[in-house]
Amino acid sequence: MEKVFVVGVDIGGQTSKIGVVDARGEVLAQNAIRTDTYGEDSEAYIAALAEGIQACVAQSGHSMEEIRGIGVGAPNANYYTGIIEFAPNIAWAAHHSVPLGKHLSKALGGIPVSLTNDANAAAAGEMAYGAARGMKHFIMITLGTGVGSGIVIDGKVVYGHDGLAGELGHTCVVRNNGRTCGCGKTGCLEAYCSATGIARTATEWLSATDEPSLLRELDSISSKDIYDAAKQGDALALRLFEYTGALLGQSFADFVAFSSPEAIVLFGGLARAKEFLYEPMKKAMEENLLKIWKGKIKIVFSQLKESDAAILGASGLAWEL
Amino acid sequence: MEKVFVVGVDIGGQTSKIGVVDARGEVLAQNAIRTDTYGEDSEAYIAALAEGIQACVAQSGHSMEEIRGIGVGAPNANYYTGIIEFAPNIAWAAHHSVPLGKHLSKALGGIPVSLTNDANAAAAGEMAYGAARGMKHFIMITLGTGVGSGIVIDGKVVYGHDGLAGELGHTCVVRNNGRTCGCGKTGCLEAYCSATGIARTATEWLSATDEPSLLRELDSISSKDIYDAAKQGDALALRLFEYTGALLGQSFADFVAFSSPEAIVLFGGLARAKEFLYEPMKKAMEENLLKIWKGKIKIVFSQLKESDAAILGASGLAWEL
Repeated sequence: MEKVFVVGVDIGGQTSKIGVVDARGEVLAQNAIRTDTYGEDSEAYIAALAEGIQACVAQSGHSMEEIRGIGVGAPNANYYTGIIEFAPNIAWAAHHSVPLGKHLSKALGGIPVSLTNDANAAAAGEMAYGAARGMKHFIMITLGTGVGSGIVIDGKVVYGHDGLAGELGHTCVVRNNGRTCGCGKTGCLEAYCSATGIARTATEWLSATDEPSLLRELDSISSKDIYDAAKQGDALALRLFEYTGALLGQSFADFVAFSSPEAIVLFGGLARAKEFLYEPMKKAMEENLLKIWKGKIKIVFSQLKESDAAILGASGLAWEL
Repeated sequence: MEKVFVVGVDIGGQTSKIGVVDARGEVLAQNAIRTDTYGEDSEAYIAALAEGIQACVAQSGHSMEEIRGIGVGAPNANYYTGIIEFAPNIAWAAHHSVPLGKHLSKALGGIPVSLTNDANAAAAGEMAYGAARGMKHFIMITLGTGVGSGIVIDGKVVYGHDGLAGELGHTCVVRNNGRTCGCGKTGCLEAYCSATGIARTATEWLSATDEPSLLRELDSISSKDIYDAAKQGDALALRLFEYTGALLGQSFADFVAFSSPEAIVLFGGLARAKEFLYEPMKKAMEENLLKIWKGKIKIVFSQLKESDAAILGASGLAWEL
């Protein structure tokens, strides 16, 4: 039987989402299981996941024989080994190496399984169905709680020597006296340009001056609050996006010098503030590009429906199987 | 006849060096023609180059039928198009696009010709015969008059969307008030860590203080002068290497976050100061690496004989043909 469908699995700390997807990126059926009710018992989780996948495929009206492969996006997942290791938010993988790829494949009669982290999965998804369709060279940047990245060269996601390539959120954007990042280093892009990073900047700026701002009334500030304030014309909120966008653009110029991509593709909660981020981002990137690239590198935004994006991303991996 | 030899051509501003090379990196015969005696007549140059190659092959005791292909390293050379364009130091390519790959191949009966810039050629050479033999993922950094780079992922040199990838010398290492680089941008790695960059730092430091130094006696300072002074224990010269090495190491950590290579491979005049650069470079890189990479990334030095390196590098390209 022709294998024209794939399954995408997005493993989050609480829920694991499952979807059956066709070549156009249509999600034919969806399912979900809990991630967090198996304690440290990874085998029980994998058995439940296999069942969930079979149920989802049945629900789509197709059979397992029509499934080309399963793509899994998960934190701390290694593409080469199919192992999830030391993922702090998943009890059954927090203290062990879990060979999820191998065991899931076995539980499903040997079907190929491919694993990688969320940002690489997002890159695969954009390439298969989204903003990067037809592109052979692009860099995916996910602006969420953290800053993730997936690099595509010659139509393939770059995994590097050890399967862990593409940690652009932890390149340095502020060299001297940079903020401490969650990773322990200082000055990382993630410490400034993630949803939490822009909120940190807001808190710093508010305490440094008396400038009036809608943000002063809040007990704690989220990137969504900053977006809402900017929408209402709040000057400080607008400057927060200018500053954050400029740092992103400066970093993008360095990324371009590495792999000379056709485009930078943005996804994630903070990328929703497109209207405020795009101009400062583009301007700073252009100012910092070598002449050979000026005016030639696109900055584009994800075209995947947000509710389906994680499943689509993971499923995108499976087309390479 | 089995095609077990390749030809390497290194096009410099004054001289073009030619060599016939075997699979072990042995240079069997060498030849050279002038680059600068053809004015703007690229056709005359290419005809002379074809003759020079034929003479060199004859001199090696082999025939053109045994040559698998020709690899050419040249400034501003585009791998995808085989074109040299707007190379400021080469009269016949300073104002035009010269399709050297196509024309040279035609002049030699259709033999495959591959063109790229010097740093990518160096990477190909290290992979074929040198310090990167057997490596699938590494980053070549050339520390000469400028700072060049060649990135290898999955055993292939990365050319990017337009053939121009790998300009790591023009990533930013000093964000605020950085020095102006030859490229027109500010704060580039090349402006600090090339042979000319370290000499600029020396001049700046000497004029900022009265600290005694052997370098004060000189009219103009070269990286070689700084090396000689460091050898004699000159404190300022030693600190120059510490500073330059630290900037390199910081940048290397960011490069690792991109492609997760097995090693950084160094070549070029300034890399000869290995004894002074290695420790500060390694220390700064380790301090700026994510935990997953600490202690795992090698910094190694070119193993190609310096007089042959350019020819070997260019010839390395031809094995992929």
